[in-house]
Amino acid sequence: MNSDEFRKAGYRIIDWIADYRAGIEARPVMAKTAPGDVKAMLPASPPQQPESFDAILADLDRVVMPGITTWQHPRFFGYFPANALLSSVLGDYVSTGLGVNGLAWQASPALTEVEEVVTDWMRQMLGLSNAWSGVINDTASTSTLVALLCARERASQYSLVRGGLQGEEKPLVVYASGHSHSSVEKAALLAGFGRTNVRVVPQEASHAMRAESLASMVHEDIRDGRVPCAVVATSGTTTSTALDPIEAIARVATANNMWLHLDAAMAGSAMILPECRWMWQGVELADSLIVNPHKWLGAVFDCTLYFVRDPEHLVRVMSTNPSYLKTQADGRVKNYRDWGLPLGRRFRALKLWFLIREQGVESLQARLRRDLDNAKWLAAEIGKTPNWAVVAPVPLQTLCIRHEPAGLTGEALDKHTLDLAGRINQSGQAYVTPAMLDGRWVVRVSIGAELTERRHVQQLWQLMQDLVR
Amino acid sequence: MNSDEFRKAGYRIIDWIADYRAGIEARPVMAKTAPGDVKAMLPASPPQQPESFDAILADLDRVVMPGITTWQHPRFFGYFPANALLSSVLGDYVSTGLGVNGLAWQASPALTEVEEVVTDWMRQMLGLSNAWSGVINDTASTSTLVALLCARERASQYSLVRGGLQGEEKPLVVYASGHSHSSVEKAALLAGFGRTNVRVVPQEASHAMRAESLASMVHEDIRDGRVPCAVVATSGTTTSTALDPIEAIARVATANNMWLHLDAAMAGSAMILPECRWMWQGVELADSLIVNPHKWLGAVFDCTLYFVRDPEHLVRVMSTNPSYLKTQADGRVKNYRDWGLPLGRRFRALKLWFLIREQGVESLQARLRRDLDNAKWLAAEIGKTPNWAVVAPVPLQTLCIRHEPAGLTGEALDKHTLDLAGRINQSGQAYVTPAMLDGRWVVRVSIGAELTERRHVQQLWQLMQDLVR
Repeated sequence: MNSDEFRKAGYRIIDWIADYRAGIEARPVMAKTAPGDVKAMLPASPPQQPESFDAILADLDRVVMPGITTWQHPRFFGYFPANALLSSVLGDYVSTGLGVNGLAWQASPALTEVEEVVTDWMRQMLGLSNAWSGVINDTASTSTLVALLCARERASQYSLVRGGLQGEEKPLVVYASGHSHSSVEKAALLAGFGRTNVRVVPQEASHAMRAESLASMVHEDIRDGRVPCAVVATSGTTTSTALDPIEAIARVATANNMWLHLDAAMAGSAMILPECRWMWQGVELADSLIVNPHKWLGAVFDCTLYFVRDPEHLVRVMSTNPSYLKTQADGRVKNYRDWGLPLGRRFRALKLWFLIREQGVESLQARLRRDLDNAKWLAAEIGKTPNWAVVAPVPLQTLCIRHEPAGLTGEALDKHTLDLAGRINQSGQAYVTPAMLDGRWVVRVSIGAELTERRHVQQLWQLMQDLVR
Repeated sequence: MNSDEFRKAGYRIIDWIADYRAGIEARPVMAKTAPGDVKAMLPASPPQQPESFDAILADLDRVVMPGITTWQHPRFFGYFPANALLSSVLGDYVSTGLGVNGLAWQASPALTEVEEVVTDWMRQMLGLSNAWSGVINDTASTSTLVALLCARERASQYSLVRGGLQGEEKPLVVYASGHSHSSVEKAALLAGFGRTNVRVVPQEASHAMRAESLASMVHEDIRDGRVPCAVVATSGTTTSTALDPIEAIARVATANNMWLHLDAAMAGSAMILPECRWMWQGVELADSLIVNPHKWLGAVFDCTLYFVRDPEHLVRVMSTNPSYLKTQADGRVKNYRDWGLPLGRRFRALKLWFLIREQGVESLQARLRRDLDNAKWLAAEIGKTPNWAVVAPVPLQTLCIRHEPAGLTGEALDKHTLDLAGRINQSGQAYVTPAMLDGRWVVRVSIGAELTERRHVQQLWQLMQDLVR
């Protein structure tokens, strides 16, 4: 495909995406595909000869689209808002079309320097002090792994240059609440700590971590000859956006030389609202933190911000310096390859740069405030309706909801809840993802798609009420 | 930005990329930016109010483009061919515009199932048996880390559910040659093995690993009470595309219950040519292997294929199963989140699907054969020119070249070599990345950009000769 052919085919792709986005509300939210449906429509072997672009586009409609769950649908209330705003999409199109790789500063200086600037813009938008340095990673999972590796190496005084975790006499221990994201335990296990050295800290009724419990578990581990290494606090847990008490946790961490990593993947976007910043009071005491602009804020996936207070430590843990990556600019520039796991690096800063400039900070703030209002409205409606309950605090835009008809408890109630969630999704009218809270299933509703207005939340509420009648 | 505005702005982005690609040969290959130049042109703080799309596009030209090194330039001979073919770019545009996230099969069934099909197409194209299962990761670095984590858990019989590496009595050991990629040592250190448990296996004159040395190092470690855990072999090392003897290495691995991971990130693309498959003879004996379609093959970055023979083991090491990720389809479908590090997942299969269909296997093969011929031609030209040498075998498309004027040795020769590479790059006419081989610098020339024809290789050769005159 030469550039003329690209121009023609590219217009068609733009039209195709524009049509998809314009017609998004008319689509079913959840794909109605059965397992194997898509595979069955595709040839088992690759084509030996070129196919026409027409054939490929036709298969997009015929094969792919029936298997697409509509994440930007105004009645998508599953997982998290995945606001791939169209300005951000265009920023990513520039990155992909340029096809550069930022494995060294010299390999495209603009890639590195725009990333430096845009991560610093984000730092300011989030109200963080200038003690933080940022880098863009793919996901929160990867970033949390990086954080725990950095914690491991700080606590062990760089065991990696010696015998690794295999050479340590006292086991290092990691702490998180039972409501921390699944990626936290995964990262701790992959980093080699072992499950017997990962502590689940008890929670308050609000599902936030109990700092006093953390303190006593830490003391117990020290008494038993183990070394408290890291604690992962969450601002906005996945299930209910519970807010761990950062400041109290930080006191425990500081007193015991532990690494404090703050997972604000989802809720971090809300920190562009000054009135929300009380939620992560104490953030300046953390060693690392993550915020996912690819969620509520509006950047297209993937775009996770990883902020650290000690970039030199990060580089010491992550850097490699083989001859074939050396350039004449080294020492005077940032080489972001030494700030994370992968060597290769897309020009991800463009999608954030386009987004922030096309929107402006105030528009981003206004949209998030709209979503907080919608969540408050829905919580109030449910609160005044018999047999319905919001079963966790709603500091942000996620609601844990249950329909609790008189006499229904235990597993029967769970069945009722999962059945409701399943019927919402099967209807194609809305999409929710159920979750467990306090040992029982809830219908979890995450509000904040770009197109979600009050009426869409009203429609969901009406649908839920209709389905249990 | 609504869909109508997107349509207009999108056409402009398509035109902008089409113009960039059409005019690529007229651009300097290496950006001439000085450190800080790009940053200095950007505001230190984010805009509060929306900016026009015109303003953003204007800054692309004014701020970004001078800082772009032209990776698709026909005289780009650095690092590796980064062939972001335009059909692949369009496949990625569809992915980005759809904005779906494959964190569960149900979250967009087509994302998972197209990936299953396309990775299997690639398996067939590479001549691999159907004992392999594939998944798309971002990079080789990440995939090698996954491989070593899987090796660690197999050798330790899932230490992660116990005390991790901290609970093992005998240290696990990892082996690789001194010419394995820097990501191998990085992965071993991050996985917690520790540098004292990473062995650098000596090499042949060809820069391939000596299998006999591996065998004796393994026996020594066993004798000393350590556990050989994994060996990483490379088909096509970064500096000179040296070929480790897979079959002989596999014999050592099999005899000692070691994991064999094969790094064919760059050279793997050549295995779509049946005449090249002798290069990884023994590949079927490996446990895992990586090939980067985002290099020579033509997919736009990022797109690494990770193939494994035991996907159940991979899932056992990587899986998490929190309530909020459960769906009614679980158990009947693949959830690729359990095949690697990140939870979130782009629809990366589209860029490979578009590429393979638009090109057809035979066109891809023809292009790679052209590049192999060009490399042979250049090696022959240099071989017959006094004072010039190709200092390593050239099985593929990478040449290690030196100009060796009579009397110049040691550090003076190194200075001469680095000076030549620097002057090539500063000229803007071509781009090369120097590397160390046998303790001395070489000018490393990696041939295979999509637009690179014989005349571009001739121009590089002429330029090099002119610069030393």
